[in-house]
Amino acid sequence: MVFTVPATSANLGPGFDTLGLAIDLQNRVVIKRSKFLSISIKGEGENNYRLKTNNRFVSIFYEIYQSLTGRKDNFRFEFYNNIPLARGMGSSSAIIVSAIGAAYAMSEVKSSKENILNKALVFEHHPDNISPAVYGGFTVSILNGSKVCVKRKILPGFLKAVMVIPNRAMSTNLSRKALPKFYRMQDIVFNISHSSFLTAAFFNEDWEMLRLASQDKIHQRYRMNTMKELFEVQKRALKSGALMSTLSGSGSSFFNLVYEDDVKKIKNDLKNAFPSFRIEAFDLNNSGFEIKKI
Amino acid sequence: MVFTVPATSANLGPGFDTLGLAIDLQNRVVIKRSKFLSISIKGEGENNYRLKTNNRFVSIFYEIYQSLTGRKDNFRFEFYNNIPLARGMGSSSAIIVSAIGAAYAMSEVKSSKENILNKALVFEHHPDNISPAVYGGFTVSILNGSKVCVKRKILPGFLKAVMVIPNRAMSTNLSRKALPKFYRMQDIVFNISHSSFLTAAFFNEDWEMLRLASQDKIHQRYRMNTMKELFEVQKRALKSGALMSTLSGSGSSFFNLVYEDDVKKIKNDLKNAFPSFRIEAFDLNNSGFEIKKI
Repeated sequence: MVFTVPATSANLGPGFDTLGLAIDLQNRVVIKRSKFLSISIKGEGENNYRLKTNNRFVSIFYEIYQSLTGRKDNFRFEFYNNIPLARGMGSSSAIIVSAIGAAYAMSEVKSSKENILNKALVFEHHPDNISPAVYGGFTVSILNGSKVCVKRKILPGFLKAVMVIPNRAMSTNLSRKALPKFYRMQDIVFNISHSSFLTAAFFNEDWEMLRLASQDKIHQRYRMNTMKELFEVQKRALKSGALMSTLSGSGSSFFNLVYEDDVKKIKNDLKNAFPSFRIEAFDLNNSGFEIKKI
Repeated sequence: MVFTVPATSANLGPGFDTLGLAIDLQNRVVIKRSKFLSISIKGEGENNYRLKTNNRFVSIFYEIYQSLTGRKDNFRFEFYNNIPLARGMGSSSAIIVSAIGAAYAMSEVKSSKENILNKALVFEHHPDNISPAVYGGFTVSILNGSKVCVKRKILPGFLKAVMVIPNRAMSTNLSRKALPKFYRMQDIVFNISHSSFLTAAFFNEDWEMLRLASQDKIHQRYRMNTMKELFEVQKRALKSGALMSTLSGSGSSFFNLVYEDDVKKIKNDLKNAFPSFRIEAFDLNNSGFEIKKI
């Protein structure tokens, strides 16, 4: 069977640990029953030997598979990885979501997107990436005990993501440590209001309001301080006409939402300004995690 | 001319200084040119002599009127006040919004709701009550410099407000002072996510999600500690079937959103439990500030 899962961009500025959307750049894994356990990796991570001996997908897959079937059968896993690693594009959530979904499918135990999402929360405590990885689209998530509740909005085809992917990572842990321990009400109200307004703008398809609504005061600048070129990336993207330009997850990538007609100009502007960074345009993704039979 | 402005309920749980909606309980003022300045008050505040000698509506009205016309003409002001004073139902924002709107109309200077809203921000620095007072409906507001940006959602007729109005006030200043100076990220994320989700639920008309989405961790419990019966009010309202039950503004009233069919039961339950509090059901208001010629 073949399983695909999209990249995601979380936070979207003010919506810390809350907002996210899916990008049509996918990891694909083909899983077949086999006499021996074997793993092959093409794409991201293919030169990292540790990913073969200590593969997170495989370990989560077997944890779920064994709990469902009571067996430790052998499979051949063929990974086709397109989501950059450690760049804030949801590669970790993609692994968790697809491993869980695949384990249910290979066990022939009925599951649902809702079930996959709630199981994923055990492995990744923030829902902002796992929700769009499971469902696609723009998502708003809250936690209710050990369950995730999601409101979702389908995104139109004329909106594209132009990703700026730096040549080095930003560790999520370090990036979280860069944040203040305490905040004042003024900054909190700023983010509550902007995240709520951004949500309203997405649900209302009021794209022209995104630039104003996507401002943040509680995390981006602290994190961007550890890679100062990112301030310039954001400034340049907005100047070139991006509808919004936000740190993707905990970085290091930058997410730029743009009209289809502006993709070429914005991509070129960014490429000229940041020749050492990878700049790529993608469709948005509205389907999330998918299973295909082969 | 006659000017009407609705009561409002702000915050709506997690949406501190951000979310609000309008309730169809209105203050009305009739203004006529006259040889002498005169003020009459019926309803809320009618026994408060200070409201005649030092009336905030009249002082804001004249400030704007004089700046527009350069004149200090005399008017007769007849106030018909229905919005309770100092109960977190937006009486102060109602005064500001209607005074500004009336001053433009009596000056015969063209204005707009947007202009009234931005002028109102000079007198009331939080947009959460003034936005629904001006526009009606459910509103999400952000500040952009000295301007307010609003996203608005019309509310359906089958939703009603059951207000629990205590027999004593809670000062906005004291109520703000009860709040912590600093907050941890965990509580901040809770409010960002719930306020965003609540916004999505309103825009999506997903009323069943409001109960979960309307939870708050940054202000309600601190304020309710100064009037502990309010914890019981909230518990009782939710148990009786309210869709959401939140402290109205900075209190002391409680706002309960309910289906039309549940109004009678919820009202009776609350009346029996809190005989000394005023319990009243109202329509929601979708028109905001209005001007009528007589």
